[in-house]
Amino acid sequence: MLSQQELITLFKETRKDSEDICSYLETEDYVVQPIVDVSPPKWHLGHTTWFFEEFVLKKYAESHKLFDKNTAYVFNSYYESVGDKVIRTNRGNLSRPTVSWIYEFRDYVTNSMLELLNNKDLDEEALGVIEIGCHHEKQHQELLYTDIKYILGNNPLFPKYNEQFKENPIQNFKKDWITLGEGLYEIGHKSDAFCYDNEQGVHKVFLCDFEISNKLVTNGEFLEFMEAGGYQDVLLWHAEAWDWVNEHTIRSPFYWHKIDGEWHTYTLNGLVKLEPEAPVTHVSYYEAFAYAQWKGMRLPTEQEWEASQDQFEWGSRWEWTESAYSPYPNYKKPEGALGEYNGKFMVNQKVLRGGSVATSARHTRHTYRNFFHPQLRWQFTGFRLVK
Amino acid sequence: MLSQQELITLFKETRKDSEDICSYLETEDYVVQPIVDVSPPKWHLGHTTWFFEEFVLKKYAESHKLFDKNTAYVFNSYYESVGDKVIRTNRGNLSRPTVSWIYEFRDYVTNSMLELLNNKDLDEEALGVIEIGCHHEKQHQELLYTDIKYILGNNPLFPKYNEQFKENPIQNFKKDWITLGEGLYEIGHKSDAFCYDNEQGVHKVFLCDFEISNKLVTNGEFLEFMEAGGYQDVLLWHAEAWDWVNEHTIRSPFYWHKIDGEWHTYTLNGLVKLEPEAPVTHVSYYEAFAYAQWKGMRLPTEQEWEASQDQFEWGSRWEWTESAYSPYPNYKKPEGALGEYNGKFMVNQKVLRGGSVATSARHTRHTYRNFFHPQLRWQFTGFRLVK
Amino acid sequence: MLSQQELITLFKETRKDSEDICSYLETEDYVVQPIVDVSPPKWHLGHTTWFFEEFVLKKYAESHKLFDKNTAYVFNSYYESVGDKVIRTNRGNLSRPTVSWIYEFRDYVTNSMLELLNNKDLDEEALGVIEIGCHHEKQHQELLYTDIKYILGNNPLFPKYNEQFKENPIQNFKKDWITLGEGLYEIGHKSDAFCYDNEQGVHKVFLCDFEISNKLVTNGEFLEFMEAGGYQDVLLWHAEAWDWVNEHTIRSPFYWHKIDGEWHTYTLNGLVKLEPEAPVTHVSYYEAFAYAQWKGMRLPTEQEWEASQDQFEWGSRWEWTESAYSPYPNYKKPEGALGEYNGKFMVNQKVLRGGSVATSARHTRHTYRNFFHPQLRWQFTGFRLVK
Amino acid sequence: MLSQQELITLFKETRKDSEDICSYLETEDYVVQPIVDVSPPKWHLGHTTWFFEEFVLKKYAESHKLFDKNTAYVFNSYYESVGDKVIRTNRGNLSRPTVSWIYEFRDYVTNSMLELLNNKDLDEEALGVIEIGCHHEKQHQELLYTDIKYILGNNPLFPKYNEQFKENPIQNFKKDWITLGEGLYEIGHKSDAFCYDNEQGVHKVFLCDFEISNKLVTNGEFLEFMEAGGYQDVLLWHAEAWDWVNEHTIRSPFYWHKIDGEWHTYTLNGLVKLEPEAPVTHVSYYEAFAYAQWKGMRLPTEQEWEASQDQFEWGSRWEWTESAYSPYPNYKKPEGALGEYNGKFMVNQKVLRGGSVATSARHTRHTYRNFFHPQLRWQFTGFRLVK
Repeated sequence: MLSQQELITLFKETRKDSEDICSYLETEDYVVQPIVDVSPPKWHLGHTTWFFEEFVLKKYAESHKLFDKNTAYVFNSYYESVGDKVIRTNRGNLSRPTVSWIYEFRDYVTNSMLELLNNKDLDEEALGVIEIGCHHEKQHQELLYTDIKYILGNNPLFPKYNEQFKENPIQNFKKDWITLGEGLYEIGHKSDAFCYDNEQGVHKVFLCDFEISNKLVTNGEFLEFMEAGGYQDVLLWHAEAWDWVNEHTIRSPFYWHKIDGEWHTYTLNGLVKLEPEAPVTHVSYYEAFAYAQWKGMRLPTEQEWEASQDQFEWGSRWEWTESAYSPYPNYKKPEGALGEYNGKFMVNQKVLRGGSVATSARHTRHTYRNFFHPQLRWQFTGFRLVK
Repeated sequence: MLSQQELITLFKETRKDSEDICSYLETEDYVVQPIVDVSPPKWHLGHTTWFFEEFVLKKYAESHKLFDKNTAYVFNSYYESVGDKVIRTNRGNLSRPTVSWIYEFRDYVTNSMLELLNNKDLDEEALGVIEIGCHHEKQHQELLYTDIKYILGNNPLFPKYNEQFKENPIQNFKKDWITLGEGLYEIGHKSDAFCYDNEQGVHKVFLCDFEISNKLVTNGEFLEFMEAGGYQDVLLWHAEAWDWVNEHTIRSPFYWHKIDGEWHTYTLNGLVKLEPEAPVTHVSYYEAFAYAQWKGMRLPTEQEWEASQDQFEWGSRWEWTESAYSPYPNYKKPEGALGEYNGKFMVNQKVLRGGSVATSARHTRHTYRNFFHPQLRWQFTGFRLVK
Repeated sequence: MLSQQELITLFKETRKDSEDICSYLETEDYVVQPIVDVSPPKWHLGHTTWFFEEFVLKKYAESHKLFDKNTAYVFNSYYESVGDKVIRTNRGNLSRPTVSWIYEFRDYVTNSMLELLNNKDLDEEALGVIEIGCHHEKQHQELLYTDIKYILGNNPLFPKYNEQFKENPIQNFKKDWITLGEGLYEIGHKSDAFCYDNEQGVHKVFLCDFEISNKLVTNGEFLEFMEAGGYQDVLLWHAEAWDWVNEHTIRSPFYWHKIDGEWHTYTLNGLVKLEPEAPVTHVSYYEAFAYAQWKGMRLPTEQEWEASQDQFEWGSRWEWTESAYSPYPNYKKPEGALGEYNGKFMVNQKVLRGGSVATSARHTRHTYRNFFHPQLRWQFTGFRLVK
Repeated sequence: MLSQQELITLFKETRKDSEDICSYLETEDYVVQPIVDVSPPKWHLGHTTWFFEEFVLKKYAESHKLFDKNTAYVFNSYYESVGDKVIRTNRGNLSRPTVSWIYEFRDYVTNSMLELLNNKDLDEEALGVIEIGCHHEKQHQELLYTDIKYILGNNPLFPKYNEQFKENPIQNFKKDWITLGEGLYEIGHKSDAFCYDNEQGVHKVFLCDFEISNKLVTNGEFLEFMEAGGYQDVLLWHAEAWDWVNEHTIRSPFYWHKIDGEWHTYTLNGLVKLEPEAPVTHVSYYEAFAYAQWKGMRLPTEQEWEASQDQFEWGSRWEWTESAYSPYPNYKKPEGALGEYNGKFMVNQKVLRGGSVATSARHTRHTYRNFFHPQLRWQFTGFRLVK
């Protein structure tokens, strides 16, 4: 548990990071929502701010005056138990409040929070909610990157976000495979540092022998799968995946473009030639699974990943696992609105482990459980194999 | 036909008007597209500019350099024969080009056009296309008003566009009904002033006796229909209208809101109390028809409207007619891309006559044929009755 | 107006005809509904029977006992004002009542009707409703043919309905074009024989000079259009038509199949080779319009068709006209449920004139106005040209 | 492994059972497909027959003549690797082949199979495929019951299938809860009797302490949840479940009807009053989960169910578990078309354990893994709780 002083540092750094990420944007980039999974950047900035006003200031800062009575309605995301909300598909239809209004709202709430944190001794519950609020904003920082990438990468003009942004690290690892023996392993978050409810409840699992790859699958390897007709071989795919591949004419990872016979990929640094040694990214679980089938291997379960992760490097991609997102044994959903944070998504989603180039510095750990629907590709998703 | 000098005046006035309309907007307001029928204001500004570059400068200004090679793709609307285009539903997903880029594009093309108009004697064909380009931009000015109204009126914050904007003129007419006798009437555009292809081909029609109302149906009258259960009486509605009413739970004209028991309506001047003496607006053809059924009357045909229009005042609302949008006898579709302007819409739409508070000063006449799908309501649409 | 005795003959003949049409079916053929526009044959048999029980027996046969209290619910089609109904898309999901139950229901109602007609002097109103009931059933006989054709022609086994059924008459006409001069013509139903409300109200129209083809466009002519790339040339199509062509990959008239390089067409007599001299059929209005554009001609209006029809042969195809389906001047919608018969469809549909190989003997006349949505093709629809 | 003689018995019994189930149907009941999840009974009868002709007779009966070359196309279900198939949604649109044709097809294939089985010594592979074919047909027998129930229960006339059919057994158990201690348990199919690939690969799992209910949740208990507002309390539901509840206005288990203030349920024996002591059925996973949340308990995992099942009675309902359908460790997908049997469904589905009143006598076992999407309700699905 962080001290109040440490929390002030975390809070300030977090608030600043969100604004730094957006500093490369034009006003127009803050507004649009090209697909339902993407939110307008201005919405992320407002929503993370609303969280602090709704769950901290309203409760713990007695004399706090709301910045505006309509903010809750506009910036609530999915807390069904906290009043009405703008339906998700409508976010990109709202030109107001404006970007400059939102920055004023941010400043107002940041200052009110700092006044509270600097002048009042807060109890554990309050400190806990503030810490969650910081981690919540860090999650949205990752979404800011991926949503901005979608907004710009979906544009026929392929504008650059930031020329300095490096997306495609090459992996130079000596070792190929890591072996673990069958037996009992402990899974779940152990320290008293911050974690989400879905990581809690340390428990044993029994794993069979397995070998896990030290390297993520690369662009070059995935290209071999494509060239071998992987997207056309029904026997490699789940039934729902096959429908998806055909309905959307999926023939390559997302953001790949063949230009004059050569594969390029859109990155936050603009369109670049495909780097064969870099880990493949923007693939769905379906594609990761089909690739593994083609290699005669499989994806790791999240337990296998967690048990072996200290032996390999990770952090450049969120990695798909074979595991469906389910509660751990003895999972306890928090009371009240914050109970909506994780538990209600525990169906029809796959767990991802790791972290990506878009992940905030302090925002991943080996027990972190990310989750997405199996067909989604706009996150920085890759995968490693198990045999 | 306008002289080249008159055309310069028309062109300059037209270009300025579009920018004046947008001068009340925030940057964010230029970007969004809340429904497919609405286009982002920045798209209108770019598209009307692209029209002059594509159809005039490329052809008649030999040394013209394109402002940017990607503009055609982004700003083509429906000219299928002029290359690819951004599909209509995707317009609101594009944050780039930015608003300031578009204003630079406008300036560049306006200046190039003026240079051409001031320095070269243009032939009739060229002058004709430029005149169409001005009228085309005036059409988009009307759409700018209605699309801006939708963008702001759809926003839960109901921002005002312009406090000075007057939407709801009251009609103080002595006479109620105007009578025309049966006989032959001439329909179609006769002078050699500008008109669209769909107005051409003067021809005779035989009309039976009819009486047409001097006044548009008012808000107060429409409220009586609502209170009499008009929206619930299946026998008043077309079959497709009844499905529409029920699927969308239509219970009042668009932009009407009942607040604390009192009817309000969103206008470009913000939310205001309903004015019972003002003509009703933002009704679909379906609603106009149902109202007429309920009164035991009917809507005029476009021929009846044109034959009688010089006896009544019009211009505050586009008026629904009973007429489907069809070609006049001997209708000739122009050759080439401009042939796509009108003819291809001549199915499943209803003709509107008149003009509205959003219509540009020189942009209506008694032969003008506007047309929309029968369920649409975001235009300033009203109606008058015939018995 | 028919005498009661003539009506008995009409009634008996009509009831028998429906059953004769179905005598070629297997029980399973009575049940399915492959698209929403098609109704299961058993539904047609039940619905036309329900009409007589609901609108005649219930009102005029005092002691009539309903065959079954649930029939109204199952067999009501679109009379919204007469209680609930099975929604149209659900008709093909109902295995009960069975076919044999429906034949019992038919016998019961036919006998009750004959008892009424033979034993009681009915007033004009009653006789009028019975005559409508007969014509209503004749309309459904045409739908029986076209729906049966869809049911069998949609089946990958292409079963034959009846080996004797002749669909494709060849036209051997000397004269090509018929000329009419400009002037006033009278339109509408004049005799006191039966007609629908939408044909009534004789009125004058002024027509310009035109020439109308003596022949319907043939399969061979339409094939030339296809081979000239007609389906790929955007400038020939309405905007909505172009979307339809591309969304459904329309490349030929409905029921055409290219087998081993040769065009075949499914008919009620099974798959046969395309007959180039026979009139083309199963084309939409959109395709008829595009063909006319390609020929530099146009479709007739319904007034032109009616004014010239006595000079050409018709009756092998329903013919698309350019006219939208609208009320005639002074159209009066009947009171009550029967008022739902025609008027409520007068939007977004095109008028067809003529009659087809599926039309019942006494069920067409030169004032008859059929109507369908412009994209529909399962009727026996063809067209002739005007220049 | 069954001997060839035992297999003959199993085969004959299986073929007869399918036909016995259908013996209560009218011809029309064999044809319809009211929702995509339901197949027409005649399709089940044909498909299970096609399986034997495609995978056994074609391969092992050298001189076998196909009954009809089109059967494969019509009766293939999901074996994408075995040629074209009728898309699932189109099954209910096919009136041909007729029911009597299908019975001839069945007789032909049954006789050919018996000739093969009686006159040739088959190798293990062949015997294995035939055994799978029998179990495959038993699976379809269960679907026959549930699909017939949907076909009749969806009909507004609520026809009875069979007056003798008992759906709602009452549970009279002394013990309420069964306790298992933490430790290693073995999961998976051990004997050499028949099982599917997805049950194979015996492996250890570590389970924490848990208590599992001896009884399935009853209608009466579920009614308490309904009356306490369970369907209206967002905090009890998954996010996707909440959307589902609201989009489809779900307010009770499927087949429940409130008539004159009293709850009834449609059963294969017609509409009956709700039996409070019988286990609830036709609930989705979402509803089972929400009920468990409301009770402060949870659903068992499939491992917990398998580890404890020998201590409780089961078999009257398929029971939802918390487990997503995933491969067991070391799962091996069979080669070729039969490899499509199970593996390709291992995403977005939940495992069910147990068996129901519709399950064929020899067609369940404690390792059997059924699976459905979480929102489906037309199977006989219930649940028990864990705390």
